[in-house]
Amino acid sequence: MIRLDYALAMDAGSGSGLTDSQLDAEAAAFERGCRRVLAEAEAGRLGFWGLPQDVAMAREITEFSEGLSGIDDVLVIGIGGSSLGGRAVTDAIGGPPALRRGRRVHFVDNCDPWTLAGLLEALEPASTLAIGISKSGGTVETAAQILIVREWLRNAGVALESNLVFVTDPESGSLRELADAEKLRTFAIPSSVGGRFSVLTPVGLLPAALCGVDVGAMLSGAAKMAERCAKPKLSENPAGLLAAIHVLHDRLHGRNLHVLMPYADGLRSFAAWFVQLWAESLGKRVDRQGRMVESGPTPIPSVGATDQHAQVQLFMEGPRDKLITFVAVADRGRELTIPTEQGAYEYLGGHGLAELLDYERRATALALAKDGRPSLEITLPALDAESLGGLFFLFEAATAFAGELYGIDAFDQPGVELGKRLAYGLLGRKGHEDAGEEVRALETAKPSRYRV
Amino acid sequence: MIRLDYALAMDAGSGSGLTDSQLDAEAAAFERGCRRVLAEAEAGRLGFWGLPQDVAMAREITEFSEGLSGIDDVLVIGIGGSSLGGRAVTDAIGGPPALRRGRRVHFVDNCDPWTLAGLLEALEPASTLAIGISKSGGTVETAAQILIVREWLRNAGVALESNLVFVTDPESGSLRELADAEKLRTFAIPSSVGGRFSVLTPVGLLPAALCGVDVGAMLSGAAKMAERCAKPKLSENPAGLLAAIHVLHDRLHGRNLHVLMPYADGLRSFAAWFVQLWAESLGKRVDRQGRMVESGPTPIPSVGATDQHAQVQLFMEGPRDKLITFVAVADRGRELTIPTEQGAYEYLGGHGLAELLDYERRATALALAKDGRPSLEITLPALDAESLGGLFFLFEAATAFAGELYGIDAFDQPGVELGKRLAYGLLGRKGHEDAGEEVRALETAKPSRYRV
Repeated sequence: MIRLDYALAMDAGSGSGLTDSQLDAEAAAFERGCRRVLAEAEAGRLGFWGLPQDVAMAREITEFSEGLSGIDDVLVIGIGGSSLGGRAVTDAIGGPPALRRGRRVHFVDNCDPWTLAGLLEALEPASTLAIGISKSGGTVETAAQILIVREWLRNAGVALESNLVFVTDPESGSLRELADAEKLRTFAIPSSVGGRFSVLTPVGLLPAALCGVDVGAMLSGAAKMAERCAKPKLSENPAGLLAAIHVLHDRLHGRNLHVLMPYADGLRSFAAWFVQLWAESLGKRVDRQGRMVESGPTPIPSVGATDQHAQVQLFMEGPRDKLITFVAVADRGRELTIPTEQGAYEYLGGHGLAELLDYERRATALALAKDGRPSLEITLPALDAESLGGLFFLFEAATAFAGELYGIDAFDQPGVELGKRLAYGLLGRKGHEDAGEEVRALETAKPSRYRV
Repeated sequence: MIRLDYALAMDAGSGSGLTDSQLDAEAAAFERGCRRVLAEAEAGRLGFWGLPQDVAMAREITEFSEGLSGIDDVLVIGIGGSSLGGRAVTDAIGGPPALRRGRRVHFVDNCDPWTLAGLLEALEPASTLAIGISKSGGTVETAAQILIVREWLRNAGVALESNLVFVTDPESGSLRELADAEKLRTFAIPSSVGGRFSVLTPVGLLPAALCGVDVGAMLSGAAKMAERCAKPKLSENPAGLLAAIHVLHDRLHGRNLHVLMPYADGLRSFAAWFVQLWAESLGKRVDRQGRMVESGPTPIPSVGATDQHAQVQLFMEGPRDKLITFVAVADRGRELTIPTEQGAYEYLGGHGLAELLDYERRATALALAKDGRPSLEITLPALDAESLGGLFFLFEAATAFAGELYGIDAFDQPGVELGKRLAYGLLGRKGHEDAGEEVRALETAKPSRYRV
């Protein structure tokens, strides 16, 4: 079972943690928030909550994946929520890169020709399955790359129906239209599931299944966690505690930098997934009452023990504005024993690398705690499909609850619209001519004396 | 030439930027700091400054690399400053992963057996060159992995002299002793160069040369930048401006989150290198006078356009605590044109992916600026060895100058010692028995009621 230990985020007399009464005082607000989230889920407006039950979807994906033949490479075209989840799964469970067997999965999330042109030169169209992922179909970076890849497949004489699939809205959008016109196979992102909460839909599960991950086990792990996260009593709800402790450290101690620091190479991409989830959900200009708040914690990705040699100096000695969540893995499945060597390294002999990694995490957490710098600890039983499914759900539920406690809407992202409009203007998209003019006027107005 | 445009970090009447007089007021402090840095460099105590002139080192590395035969894989064993620089170079200039030709370079920076065991299973000892990198030789994660890899080579009957080299202090340390005992080839990290400033030593240049990067061109790019960064007049010094603008936005506007957001997949690892450089150099408990300050900005890695779909919502609408540095690449060397499609995507037809990426960056910077959220823009002529060398030096010099302006020592890292000591205690290292006791006592004291 996934465990959360929050002792080092609580007050041990130093005044730097939370007291029992501070946490208890938030229990009623949490209970209201939890009931509201569950009611929204019940009413079908918060689709992510029910995904762990969707065994039919898991079956559809597994059948498609198992029925596929002649495919060596998978090209996943999607950005943000259409990429980060799938990447987190394949990096964690697909195994270390050097040992990947079976199909190679390539994620092209950016519209950088350096990456895509390189891939298209290296890959064989006939043995490549391209997956275009965009819920609305309107994502410009993804649309541009899909059009390029479609042409690449066509020019090679490959039948699109066999080598191009889309993951998109079940009914509407430009990608849906394109799929219908070309009779392409599609997988649906339920309308009530937002992009950054979509890892347990085909967005994350299709790439996962294609590199051999047991997506049924992922859903089953998520289902177990969903049950634990439905408890309205704060002290029994791991996602509630994760949310409340972060929100209270922010509100009471000004700790609005939230570091996620797994001690596992395989969870590096999970930390990147968390960054989007936390940043885009909680960073908001207005609260639910429409009052200007301009608030939101900043998530920081980190990996132990590596970042002990990069970020931990700042975490230990810099401003007291951070709350760190360590992620431990109880059973790493493999171990390497350090040979005994006379001399300076003698003390290492006979210890294991995984053992050392665990010591490093414990030493770092306690060194921080000794200076009144708080942390949380999540322990996964193992780095497997079931644990990962549970971990995804834990953070999704915590995000929904944190939105309730911050009093903001965790499910929109109005702040990116202006940038999109200005980019449309530069592209000369019809109806956005004024935006193009505006960009050029602003750029022309920039004084040249500020260049060196 | 690498360009810095700081117009969007200056005040345009909104009160959110810096005024000319605020920047001018810092010029005298900068000049003093600059002269101090140059004097330290002159006196041989700030070794990184003179590295671009070390053509003999570049020649030694190139000769070694060109003389190597029968090596298909390079295993770089090092952590933090002994890994991030090399990785930044090979990721940026080695070309997109799918297209890498020649030797494969693998960085094992973490002591996670999941990664190392995977690599040792996949690699062929006889055709693998292992490079152990640690300046002091005392880095526990690196030492442990070197001992394991050395045994792996030995067990395969491979001669260590041909397949194992060290990059370490020229005279002292446990790695140096090990090298002497085994008659191994070594490359020196000059004593006056700190780990996080070592990318232009064999630490970064050896892995770079081994995957075909022209390390001479890197030094030459760095040398040109070093010249520009030696000017004591703030308005003419790109590193001085980069430092002063960050420090002033922190001091005057509380913007202590410093985002580096290159619009180039190849610079993702460069952003990770920057995170260590900035965090470990500037996050300090005490200032130069020994007064407790607990200060330091938090660096945030980001990549455009990808993070427009992850972090930009927070950057646009969240707290006004961020200063963003965009990195543009003028000539990407390759382009992919978007095919024309009737219907919803018609506006994309005929545009290029690199063009789109550039529009996205400009639109994002201006959308932020319109809301009074400041940014800087660095433009590289191309993503090549010379530009990258210059970019490394620009940020190293800016870090040294920022240390001067913050009034802290940018070249130590005292905050990581306690964690090391506690880890030694858990490992049972002689002389650290008390630390082991302390960890166990602290862990036992953790109340079990804070677990769920």
